[in-house]
Amino acid sequence: MNHATVRVQYGMAQFVEQCAAHGYAGVSVWGAEVEKVGFATARSMIADHGLFVFGYNRAGPLMGPDFHRKDEAMDAARREIDRAAEIGADHVMLFPGGFVSGEKDLSGARQRFAEMAKVLLDHAKTAGIRLALEPLHPMLVGDRTCMGTLRHANDLCDRLGEGTGIVVDAHHVWWDEALEPEIARAGAADRILAFHVNDWLLPTRHRLTDRGMMGDGIIDLKGMWRSILGAGYDGPLEVEIFSEDWWAEPGDRVLEIAMQRCREIFDGDTDA
Amino acid sequence: MNHATVRVQYGMAQFVEQCAAHGYAGVSVWGAEVEKVGFATARSMIADHGLFVFGYNRAGPLMGPDFHRKDEAMDAARREIDRAAEIGADHVMLFPGGFVSGEKDLSGARQRFAEMAKVLLDHAKTAGIRLALEPLHPMLVGDRTCMGTLRHANDLCDRLGEGTGIVVDAHHVWWDEALEPEIARAGAADRILAFHVNDWLLPTRHRLTDRGMMGDGIIDLKGMWRSILGAGYDGPLEVEIFSEDWWAEPGDRVLEIAMQRCREIFDGDTDA
Repeated sequence: MNHATVRVQYGMAQFVEQCAAHGYAGVSVWGAEVEKVGFATARSMIADHGLFVFGYNRAGPLMGPDFHRKDEAMDAARREIDRAAEIGADHVMLFPGGFVSGEKDLSGARQRFAEMAKVLLDHAKTAGIRLALEPLHPMLVGDRTCMGTLRHANDLCDRLGEGTGIVVDAHHVWWDEALEPEIARAGAADRILAFHVNDWLLPTRHRLTDRGMMGDGIIDLKGMWRSILGAGYDGPLEVEIFSEDWWAEPGDRVLEIAMQRCREIFDGDTDA
Repeated sequence: MNHATVRVQYGMAQFVEQCAAHGYAGVSVWGAEVEKVGFATARSMIADHGLFVFGYNRAGPLMGPDFHRKDEAMDAARREIDRAAEIGADHVMLFPGGFVSGEKDLSGARQRFAEMAKVLLDHAKTAGIRLALEPLHPMLVGDRTCMGTLRHANDLCDRLGEGTGIVVDAHHVWWDEALEPEIARAGAADRILAFHVNDWLLPTRHRLTDRGMMGDGIIDLKGMWRSILGAGYDGPLEVEIFSEDWWAEPGDRVLEIAMQRCREIFDGDTDA
C-alpha cells in the first residue's frame, strides 16, 4: 500500500498500524511523511508491524522552473537516495520533473534527464538501492515529466544499464498500444520493479487527483496483470490512488476496499 | 480557421465573413452549425467570400455508450460523409468515439473501429471525399477515442489503404517520442491531410477546453512545422483551439491574434 492513497487520513504511525491490521505485507513511503517521525523511528515502526518497505518517494523532481539550481536538485536527489537506502526500501522513485520556464525543448529535457540519471545511478549503486523509472501519463509530460511511455523508460534503462528498473503504473500506461510488447521487453530484461494498481475513471475530471479504485474504471487490470506475470514479474501489487474522493473517505474503509478489490481482480490470476 | 475556435462568438454567417475579413483562405466547418443555415446556403456563403472548405466535422462518434445502436451510428456517419462531400470539403473527420458502457476492452474497440472505418471508406470513395483519422491525446482514450497515437493512425491507414489520411493536431501528439518518425512515415505515404495548430498550456486545467493559442504554451510548433513540411506536406495550417478563455474573448480579436501568431511562428519556416 502506498501512503499517498491515504495520505490525508493517516500520518506515518497510523498508516503503518492500519496497513498491518488490514493484511498488507508492505508499504511504499514518502520522504516528507517519514521525516515527520524520523527515519530511525519509521524504520522500526514498520519492522515492528512485520511490514517491508517497497517503494520510496522520491528522488527528484530534477528539472522544472527551478532548473537553474541544478546542483541543488542533484544534491537533494542524492540525499533522498541515501534516505531510501537507510529505510531499507526495495527501490527509489526517480522523478524527472517538468520543463524549465519558457522551455519548448522536449528532446532536450529528455537528454538532460538521461545525463542526470546516469550520475545518480552511480550514487544509487554505492548506496545499494535500485533507481526506479516510472513513465507518467502523456498528459503530465511538460509539467511533471519528460517520460511518457514504457518504450521511453525501456530505452532509457537500456542506456543506463544495471541498477535501474521500471515501475508500471496502470493509470499511466493502460492506453498504450505498445503496452504488451513493452511490458514483455521490460520483463525480459528483468527490470519490472513494481506494478501500481488503480483505475481510469470515465470521465477523469482532474489530471492528478481523480484516479479510480481498482474495478471502478475502464482498465483491463486482469489482462495487464497477466502480461506482467507473463513477463516474469514475481513482486507484489502496489495500490497507489491519488483521489480527492477516496481521501474524503475513512482511511480504514479505503484500505479494506482496496484489499478486497485486489483479491477479486488479481487473486484468480496469480498463477497465470 | 476551424469554426470551433470561435463557435461561441459566431454563427456560420459571421464566422465566414470574419474569416474572410481577417485574411484566412479557408474554413473547417461543423455539421451542426452548417445545418442551422442549410448546406446550400453555407456553401454559397463560403464561395461568395472566396474561401475554401478544408475539414468537415464529423462522421462519428461510431462507438460509445450507445454502441448497441451500431447501425444508426453507421447510417449517421454515411450521412455526414455525404454532407461533407456536398459542401465541398477536402476531407471528413472520422471519430471512433469512446467505450461502450462497462467495457474494458481497448484492443477490441480498436478492432471494431477498424472494421467500421473499412465499411465507411467505401462510402467515402463513392462520395469522392477522403476519410481523415485524427489521433487524439491519450488522455481522451476511453471516452472520446481508441486511437491515441500517430503510429496507431499510420498502422490503420496502412490497413485501410487509399482514400484515408491523417490529421496531425499539435495538442494531441506533441508529447510523443515517435512524433518525427511517424510524421515522416505519414508524409512518405502522402497521407498528411491537415496540421491543426494550437498549444499545450502549463498547467492544462481541463482535458477538453483548455487549449492554448499558438505561442502561449510549451509546444515547439516551429520544429513540428519543419517536420511536417519536410515530410512533403504542402497544405494549409488549420487553427483549432477549444478554450473557455478564448471563447470569452471577442471573436475578431481571436481571429486577429491567431493570424498574427501564425505569421510570427510559421511564416519564417514555410520554405524550410
